Amino acid sequence: MSGTDHSLAHTPQPQPAFVLVGPQMGENIGAAARAMWNFGLDRLRLVAPRDGWPNPRAVAMASGAAKVIDGARVFASTDEALNDLTYTYATTARPRDLTKTVFTPEAALADARARVAKGEQVGLLFGPERAGLANEDVVRANAIITVPVNPAFASLNLAQCVLLCAYEWGQGVFEADPIATSGKAVPASGVEITALRDHLESRLEDVGFFWPEDKRASMIENLRNLISRLDLTDADVRTLHGIVRALSKPPAGR
Amino acid sequence: MSGTDHSLAHTPQPQPAFVLVGPQMGENIGAAARAMWNFGLDRLRLVAPRDGWPNPRAVAMASGAAKVIDGARVFASTDEALNDLTYTYATTARPRDLTKTVFTPEAALADARARVAKGEQVGLLFGPERAGLANEDVVRANAIITVPVNPAFASLNLAQCVLLCAYEWGQGVFEADPIATSGKAVPASGVEITALRDHLESRLEDVGFFWPEDKRASMIENLRNLISRLDLTDADVRTLHGIVRALSKPPAGR
Repeated sequence: MSGTDHSLAHTPQPQPAFVLVGPQMGENIGAAARAMWNFGLDRLRLVAPRDGWPNPRAVAMASGAAKVIDGARVFASTDEALNDLTYTYATTARPRDLTKTVFTPEAALADARARVAKGEQVGLLFGPERAGLANEDVVRANAIITVPVNPAFASLNLAQCVLLCAYEWGQGVFEADPIATSGKAVPASGVEITALRDHLESRLEDVGFFWPEDKRASMIENLRNLISRLDLTDADVRTLHGIVRALSKPPAGR
Repeated sequence: MSGTDHSLAHTPQPQPAFVLVGPQMGENIGAAARAMWNFGLDRLRLVAPRDGWPNPRAVAMASGAAKVIDGARVFASTDEALNDLTYTYATTARPRDLTKTVFTPEAALADARARVAKGEQVGLLFGPERAGLANEDVVRANAIITVPVNPAFASLNLAQCVLLCAYEWGQGVFEADPIATSGKAVPASGVEITALRDHLESRLEDVGFFWPEDKRASMIENLRNLISRLDLTDADVRTLHGIVRALSKPPAGR
């Protein structure tokens, strides 16, 4: 160990382990690792990967998420992979005739966050590509995660299922305002809006826009209402002043 | 048109259009179609797909979601693809220095659901695989969608971005209880729990389990508390009666 960790990508905070049970294609293990790391998850466990381990195809597919692949722990059985975990969720597409709590991914990862915050060791289980988890692995888990999908077409693959669960984990970690505003916008003040309105109205007055006279009041009202609805920034106001000036300039040579 | 629509997969309800701008690989168009159809979305629009249209690779990749590919509409420009839409969201990974509302996928698709319910024509724009949307396409949209990801590794591909947006749409359509119970569980009634407790205690009494005498009361209290915490079903209770009986039977031949 060197004295200093220069990795910006280090994630010391506790997090769930993602356990791939009997994954078949190395490419899918790599894609799962990428999906995890997109949301800051790097604790990958593999139970009896079909093509052995390490797997060069997993490495190639993972590219930027190599640290997840390099840190993967391999186990011979599901029981061994879960030995140190205190609460586990089995992802399943089909309903199983087992008495178990079934979470949506959103509810499951919120539950996982609460457990992790209390110091629990949490894991999510994902089955092999074709068959999904065997019933004995589902039985071993404390709860089930099922993604609500189109009943006419429920064909999420392994990496997609990992992605949706990792994304829901990330919802609580890489917090973003649900609705924000990009750019360096400064909302226009009332005085700026009034000045713009007066500028526009005076130029329109000049060209006889408010006509006939009996429509004048309602035309002005509509125009002012339109301006208020625009939610303008101070930069917008400057732009619009320029446009009004440019449009109302007499054509060159007149 | 035949007289009857036999397709169970028909989705008559209004929904947003997913607009892929300048997609490059047919495989990615197919994967996007699959991701959409997993969540009941089938309105795919393509702006100037690099390899022309139709694209056999898109068809091969889409497999079960062929109807999305078959129904795809192709446009020469982003403007044409958006002509009939009243509100559009541009998906971007990078922040842009534009004054625009930035939604998370969850908030954006909730907003989209509300707009669609009011009869608006809504669309989501997705850029080409490498570069993402050009600024001019982002400017054209009413708002931005950005997935909150690990800042050290933000590498969602086209189909993954489509999947997350489609998933968030599906959250409002394929409603599932966030937390439910699978199987045909019937919770055990109080009388069943009491009978089980009495059965277990009497067998433990027989074998002198509650010993020494001064610990007896607290041992019984702990045991009863444990039984109450188990949240047993009526089937569990039958199983446990069987176990207690089996364990307390004298060994054969004694």
